[in-house]
This record gives sequence, structure tokens and C-alpha cells, in this order.
Amino acid sequence: MFGVTVRDHMLVAHSLRGEVFGPAQALHGATYVVDATFRGGALDADGILVDIARAGELLRDVLAGLTHRNLDDDARFEGRNTTTEVLAEHVADRLAEQVRAGALGTAGTVTGIAVVLHESHLARASFERDL
Amino acid sequence: MFGVTVRDHMLVAHSLRGEVFGPAQALHGATYVVDATFRGGALDADGILVDIARAGELLRDVLAGLTHRNLDDDARFEGRNTTTEVLAEHVADRLAEQVRAGALGTAGTVTGIAVVLHESHLARASFERDL
Amino acid sequence: MFGVTVRDHMLVAHSLRGEVFGPAQALHGATYVVDATFRGGALDADGILVDIARAGELLRDVLAGLTHRNLDDDARFEGRNTTTEVLAEHVADRLAEQVRAGALGTAGTVTGIAVVLHESHLARASFERDL
Amino acid sequence: MFGVTVRDHMLVAHSLRGEVFGPAQALHGATYVVDATFRGGALDADGILVDIARAGELLRDVLAGLTHRNLDDDARFEGRNTTTEVLAEHVADRLAEQVRAGALGTAGTVTGIAVVLHESHLARASFERDL
Amino acid sequence: MFGVTVRDHMLVAHSLRGEVFGPAQALHGATYVVDATFRGGALDADGILVDIARAGELLRDVLAGLTHRNLDDDARFEGRNTTTEVLAEHVADRLAEQVRAGALGTAGTVTGIAVVLHESHLARASFERDL
Amino acid sequence: MFGVTVRDHMLVAHSLRGEVFGPAQALHGATYVVDATFRGGALDADGILVDIARAGELLRDVLAGLTHRNLDDDARFEGRNTTTEVLAEHVADRLAEQVRAGALGTAGTVTGIAVVLHESHLARASFERDL
Repeated sequence: MFGVTVRDHMLVAHSLRGEVFGPAQALHGATYVVDATFRGGALDADGILVDIARAGELLRDVLAGLTHRNLDDDARFEGRNTTTEVLAEHVADRLAEQVRAGALGTAGTVTGIAVVLHESHLARASFERDL
Repeated sequence: MFGVTVRDHMLVAHSLRGEVFGPAQALHGATYVVDATFRGGALDADGILVDIARAGELLRDVLAGLTHRNLDDDARFEGRNTTTEVLAEHVADRLAEQVRAGALGTAGTVTGIAVVLHESHLARASFERDL
Repeated sequence: MFGVTVRDHMLVAHSLRGEVFGPAQALHGATYVVDATFRGGALDADGILVDIARAGELLRDVLAGLTHRNLDDDARFEGRNTTTEVLAEHVADRLAEQVRAGALGTAGTVTGIAVVLHESHLARASFERDL
Repeated sequence: MFGVTVRDHMLVAHSLRGEVFGPAQALHGATYVVDATFRGGALDADGILVDIARAGELLRDVLAGLTHRNLDDDARFEGRNTTTEVLAEHVADRLAEQVRAGALGTAGTVTGIAVVLHESHLARASFERDL
Repeated sequence: MFGVTVRDHMLVAHSLRGEVFGPAQALHGATYVVDATFRGGALDADGILVDIARAGELLRDVLAGLTHRNLDDDARFEGRNTTTEVLAEHVADRLAEQVRAGALGTAGTVTGIAVVLHESHLARASFERDL
Repeated sequence: MFGVTVRDHMLVAHSLRGEVFGPAQALHGATYVVDATFRGGALDADGILVDIARAGELLRDVLAGLTHRNLDDDARFEGRNTTTEVLAEHVADRLAEQVRAGALGTAGTVTGIAVVLHESHLARASFERDL
């Protein structure tokens, strides 16, 4: 099984509802350094699983829909907490939609996606799914 | 599948018995930077797999039973080498016991645990298990 | 010259006024991973420049005044942009006040402080000053 | 399941054929920081999955066949692009051959190998296989 | 004293002439992860030392003149080895020329530049200079 | 000013005398990941400040005198605590002696040495000196 990983980041503000979040119930923010991994069992004739440049652009495009925003005002997350887990799933699902729609071109052998959001030097969350 | 990872560390002394260990047969020590990952397939109503603050405290508590010690004198490891592999399994098993005992509260959907012990910039060992 | 560095982090929301900031003019947020370095030319009788545990607590206390907040509402920064540079200076100045006030105890030989704020895997800002 | 990971690196020149590679069609080079992970379900009587010193030497020996070379002139890759994915598979396959041939000694419980090639702070590729 | 650092990278091929270089006398390559730090004593009215976005673009532009090339064929280095030290100085000098020429706009308070080239997880070289 | 940095590590056991050290008064251990930087203002005819391979070997040799030991039994530190600061100075001083004695060969332009000991992901200490 092959994997190709690209890294980018986003800068968001948000607050979290629920006693469990303690001080994070107040409006605050985070840098999420995001690793997106594309997985598959075979390489194409060029010897690649995905075009890594396009993979990087795809991740950048997905994060462009989130970065430099206050996620409390984002209708897509209405009624939900934008926890690191929720955001990891959101990014993975958007990447999966795009890959299925052909965003990575002829490299059609991607069978899974994993997304890791690093929120500090001490904590991260991830979501992985089949395509 | 979701994952949440917290990082902490421990500082231990130990020696290792067996020719295979070469100079590590002498009493020496190591900083283990420890990544503990909790895995599960579903989030709770708050949008989290585990309360990351409690997860960090749980890891700290488990490592408190190991750090600042000479593991050669620790009865729990009598007759066994405290290799990085053995310590990774030990930490994962203690975390699993605590999670099963409810240490992470209502977030009962953790189905697996993975522990990575980084022993230098060149080497690490891991142990993963179901809950 | 000796140096002792401790690391912690803070999670803040803010917006930045001025065309130069482009999309960062909107409310967003950041994780700042903070390295605080204490410098001095001599060690005390225990062989330390500072008590590293107290240094870590001091940094945590200073960051507690910033983390989990919307800095746009913080009177201390009224009329100023809370850029990474400004925050690095702010943290260094608060640390310096505390060190001069004796917060690190008998270790009175600290002559300089440097603070680095890592805002992503691609960018950081720093401020260093004499005590 | 246990894992033991060792890190080393190689410095290679190469060019890549195919429009998809853009500027990487020209002769250029890369540092690949290589993480090789050995996996298995049981430890030996010494408490180890593999002798980590031998594992490190094995990785170094495999990389010695690649580093400080122009891979365009390497007959083993004739007619193929030496992409990060291809090199990850090559390293994993060479490690697997050696492990099966007994290069890690009595520790015969290795059941899988994973190789990650970090090509920059932004991208990496991996290959994992059973033994 | 303030500092602002941006990170980028380049992928080059080269060979080094001289017995001291051992196996690096053969054509090989490297990823250089490059940290460029701009230093100065004062912030502008926006609270910044430099526009970090422009600083990142400037670094990218300077590295664009080096990446994806065989430096053995680059007339700028004719008769010189393109060691990590030489490349660090080259990047710092090009950045300094551009900053003096106004590439960072009204932020004219940059008084020094430091460039670090990381060539692996084990080695790096740096060059720092006044403006 | 040029700098060349090499990285290695050591694994030591020790205890620290003095109430200030809290739990670290007990015998424990640490991995110190060590960065040694050689500084100088000029390159030699080969374009290098130091032969980086020899610099790495020199650091390895100096650390060989410390690693896999219980520093409590090391006569060189009798009556002193082997704090991170003390060890950083010790390593820098040994490197300086060797450089002055010609260990780095004809590259005689090293004018300063800086040593950083990383003791965890949260703390490090450094010592820098002229040659």
C-alpha cells in the first residue's frame, strides 16, 4: 500500500459549546497544521500514486474554505462544535468529494484518505476513511 | 475512524540484560516522548471522541508511575527488560485499563489505543491494541 | 553564555487592521507555540541558570493571561495590532518583569530573555531583550 | 502489534520523465529522510521485536546503495521514474529481502515493514507491505 | 530586537570537488529546507517588522533561481563548490539585495538577515549578515 | 558569520542533589539530543567552514565519553550536579579543546562553538563560547 502526504495549514477562530471544553468555551483560535494522506495500492505509468503538486493544491483549496474565518459564523457547522475531530472529518470528506470528482486527474487509484490536524505541539486529531 | 493524540514525556534510568544490548547493558537513561492515540468510530454529542484535557491528564498520570525512576528497581518489571517495546506496551495497557474503568468519562466509544515512545531523534517504538 | 528554554502554547482569536494583512483582517485565530529562553553567564551552586520547573510555570502563567481569548477585546492591546511580533514582545516583557520581581527565586543571574512564537510550520516571530 | 522505527537519510540526484512533473523534469536532487518501521505481534526473550542497532545498520546498508548517486544512471530503475513512491517501495522491498534472509538475526517475528520517505517539510510518501 | 522567519525549500543536484567531500564528490542532490530570518529593532505603524506574506514570496522568488537545477551547470557558482555554507550565503545575499531594493515595501527597518539551510535531520548550515 | 551544525544524542542516567530538583533528586535518566554549532567568519578554499563529516565524528567522540553511563559515578563531575546546563558546557568545552588541537584539520577558522541539549519536547539548555 502506497501513501502520499502533503502538508498545509489554516488559521481559524471559534468557540466550543459544552462544559467539557472549559476555557475553550470562550472565543479563541488555532493554527491547524494539516497533513492529508492519499492511499492506494498501485502506481500509474509515471510511477506516482497522485500528482503531488495537484494534491497540494487540492488541500490548499479545501483549507481556503476554512482559513481566516470565525467558524462560529459558518453555516456549514451550525449546531455543531468545530472540534478538531469534526474539522478533520470535514477536510477528509471535502478531499474525498474532489478526488471522486477527478480533481487529481488520471490518477484514479486513490482508495483512502487520512487527515491529521495538529493543533499544538501536544495534541492532534485525525480522521481516515475509504474513498 | 477518528483518532485523538496527546503528547507527554518521562525520564527514566534503566539497564538492559543481554549481549544484544551492547553498551546499553550499563545503567543509563532515556527521555521518552510519548504519543498516546485514542481511536474510535464515532463522536459524542459534543463533537469529540475524548475530552482531550482528560486524555492528557490520564497520560500524565500513567507516566507519573514511571518517570524519575530507576526501572531496574521497579517490581512490575522484575525479570523483564524495560525495552522501549515493553514500555510502550505497559503504557498502552495502563491507559486501556483506565479507559475501560471510565477515566475518560462519558466518551465510551474508544475502541483502540496506540502508544509511541520516541527515544531519540533516530528511533522510536510503538504498541497498539484494541480496547 | 548559558541559555535555558521552555516551551508552552496559547490559542487566541484576533483580527488585524491594515490592508497589508489581506485575509487576516477578518477575525481568525492561531496557535502560538512559544519558546522562552532565559540567558545568563553563570550558574548557581546547584549548577543551574534557572529552576526549569519554575521557568515553565512562569511561562504558563504569562500565557494564561492571553490564551483562550479574543485579543480584539483585550484592553492591553487597544489601538494596536496583536501581530506575532507584538505578542512576542509582550510575552518577553511580562517574563522580564516577573524575573526582575524574583519569580525565578535565587537564580538572579538571568541577563536576557528571548521569546519565539511559532505560528505555523512556515512562520515564526521573535523578540529578545536584556533584563 | 509492536513497531520499531529507525531513521536515516540519503542524498540523491535524479530527473523525472513526464509532463506531470513540471520543473522536476530537469535534473535536480533531494534529501530523503527515511523512517523504516518493522512490525510484529510478539517480542523475543530479551523483550525486543528487533535489535534496534542492527535495524539501523540494515537501513543504512540499504540506503548506501542509493545515496550520493544520480539515479538516472542506475540500471535498477531503467525505464522507470524514481519518484518518492517508487523509492519507498524499493527501500521496503530491499529491507524485506534482508529480514527474510536473517539480517536481523534471531528476531524472526517481523511480519510487516513500512517505509516513509520525507522529501521536504511539506511532502512525504510511504510504502508498507507484509513480509 | 525583533525577528521574523519564513520557511521554504529547494531541490538541487550538484557535486562537490575535493577529497574532503568523500562520496559527495559524485553527482547527488539535496532538499534544503530554508529558514530566512529578517531582524530589526522597531516595528512599523501596523505592528510588523516585515509583511510576512511578502517575506515568504521574496524567499520563494530567491529559491526559484536555484531549485530544480543541477548547480554544477550554474555559471554563478563556476569554480566554486556549492556547499551548504556557500548556498546559505548566496541566499542571504540575494535576500539582502532585494530588501535594500525595497522588495519588502515600506517596512524599511530590517537591519540583518540570517539564513539556515537544513540539509537533513542531522545537519544544517547558516549565514547571517547585516543589511 | 557562518555556522555549521551537526546533531547526535546521548543516553545517560543521573540524579540531582538539591531541593530545587524535586522528583529529579531520584536516579533517573534522559536522552539528550545534542546540536553542536561551529561558527566562523570565512570559508576555506573548498567552500566549507568545517568538514561536516569530521564535525559529526568529533561530536560523536565527545558524546561517547558520556553516553550509556550513570553520571553519578563519573569522577569528572564529582561534587557537581550534571544539570543540562553543566553538560552543555562540558560538551562545548571538550569540542573546543579538540578543535584547538586540530581535530577538524585545516579548517582553522572556527571562532566559536554553541551546544544545545534538548532534554524533551518541552525543554533544552545551551552553552556558547568563543574558541
